[in-house]
Amino acid sequence: MSLLVTGSIGIDSVSTPAGNVENVLGGSAVYFAFAAVQFAPVRLVGVVGDDFPAEFRQILESREIDLTGLEVRSGSRTFRWTGSYEGDMNEAETVDVSLNVLAEQAPNVPAVFADSKTVFLANTHPTLQRELLAQVNSPSLVVCDTMNLWIENERDSLIETLRLVHGVIINDAESRALTGAMNLIDAGEEILALGPKFVIIKKGEHGALLVTEEGPIAVPAFPTMEIRDPTGAGDSFAGGLLGYLAADGHHDAQTLRRALVRGTVAASFTIEDFSLGRVKTLTRKELDGRIERFLGMLRFD
Amino acid sequence: MSLLVTGSIGIDSVSTPAGNVENVLGGSAVYFAFAAVQFAPVRLVGVVGDDFPAEFRQILESREIDLTGLEVRSGSRTFRWTGSYEGDMNEAETVDVSLNVLAEQAPNVPAVFADSKTVFLANTHPTLQRELLAQVNSPSLVVCDTMNLWIENERDSLIETLRLVHGVIINDAESRALTGAMNLIDAGEEILALGPKFVIIKKGEHGALLVTEEGPIAVPAFPTMEIRDPTGAGDSFAGGLLGYLAADGHHDAQTLRRALVRGTVAASFTIEDFSLGRVKTLTRKELDGRIERFLGMLRFD
Repeated sequence: MSLLVTGSIGIDSVSTPAGNVENVLGGSAVYFAFAAVQFAPVRLVGVVGDDFPAEFRQILESREIDLTGLEVRSGSRTFRWTGSYEGDMNEAETVDVSLNVLAEQAPNVPAVFADSKTVFLANTHPTLQRELLAQVNSPSLVVCDTMNLWIENERDSLIETLRLVHGVIINDAESRALTGAMNLIDAGEEILALGPKFVIIKKGEHGALLVTEEGPIAVPAFPTMEIRDPTGAGDSFAGGLLGYLAADGHHDAQTLRRALVRGTVAASFTIEDFSLGRVKTLTRKELDGRIERFLGMLRFD
Repeated sequence: MSLLVTGSIGIDSVSTPAGNVENVLGGSAVYFAFAAVQFAPVRLVGVVGDDFPAEFRQILESREIDLTGLEVRSGSRTFRWTGSYEGDMNEAETVDVSLNVLAEQAPNVPAVFADSKTVFLANTHPTLQRELLAQVNSPSLVVCDTMNLWIENERDSLIETLRLVHGVIINDAESRALTGAMNLIDAGEEILALGPKFVIIKKGEHGALLVTEEGPIAVPAFPTMEIRDPTGAGDSFAGGLLGYLAADGHHDAQTLRRALVRGTVAASFTIEDFSLGRVKTLTRKELDGRIERFLGMLRFD
């Protein structure tokens, strides 16, 4: 089924204990798309400035990612983020951020994308998430992300968005900030009460927690020593997960479990190199091989 | 197979967001024993003072825990610990600690325990761990724990102990302090190089990581909202794990996986109440029921 993602497309500079890179392709929608496209074609909606490098566009064009919804706005500059990771690399420190074109008018969903059945609303202002969603006719699965900025400053709008989505994928700190609950299952259940049918709480190197009315399910991260840059891990996780759900066409608890595994493994490749260094050459065969290995690790009886 | 545990037996006072208790039964060997005894009879070696309450002894006597190795030292006082937990309760803050009898001469392993086949050396001075181990004739499985104090101040002695054990069960911070490695698989592999055949790294609410020469295996914690007091979770985890291995008689990677599940579930009961409040009435049927539920949660394909 058709999968639409709206989110940021950016130019990143990142420093980690494994090295550093400057002015590389990044952004939530980009990481999401490269993971999701392993399972289903992706429709991307986002906006960049006219400084967006031609080679970044070529990277996006190298996969089955429909760029009809990629607006290149003349006279504007692309979103830029500079971040650094230390120690266990579980949390990014934002060194510098320039919203640039993201602070201007949002891009439109092209009419040819209006029939999209699966929609991922990456983190942005919750009112904007609803405006984007309103341009899709009758999606059967809508999932959103958010961040502490909106939880703190736009709570009412965020809660309105949560009423409209089937699922939420956020990190542990965000789930706690949103609900005030310290226990993550508790937090997940409080979010369910706001409308969504499932909540997936990302815990970085500690894996993820799925909460539905059938109860909680925990999945560990894929254990790996190859971590050069965690940027995009959460978006790749969401991408692998939603790509799998879009291809499968269901989102019951059992399908969600299988999707969790795909998201986890997709993220494990992203962190092996800076930017899209690893995932831009990742084959479906490599991905499937690691999914099998991970499923093998998860057999405890 | 016969299972021997040596470790602390103490009187705890604990404060958590769920409440607080004063002067309750605690100690690593006690929590270990109550989890392990669900799977195999336990032989306990430890020392208390003559202030050790009769009702605490009765609690220990209520299960198949052989107290031949429990020395009550006249004129000495029992080990006491006061701790508190806040927020996500992942880490205890030690408010007060009185080693008392633990700072004196160590207890002996009774001659009738010398034929023990499985031995768990809970955290204590690594030289003392070796002295205790030397009193067991020909154990087929020896596992130890340790703590930062010995990692920092008694490294050479600890490394000598690590050469003698088959397995190590420590927490994430300890594995990092011991090896200097930030990545936990890396830390586990460096510990394997010191002698042990397996390393199990405990991550509290985030589960555990098993590292053997066959590679890493991650298991999540049992997802639960019922957390009143995390004290003893790590020792209960080790107890459930070693109890299962002692009953099974093997410790290959496949058996270790099944043991990880038992340890995880044993710990999930311990944290539901203060002290041994929950586990002292826990039945094997309740334990098995949750093991089945947890195994069901871990089926992702």
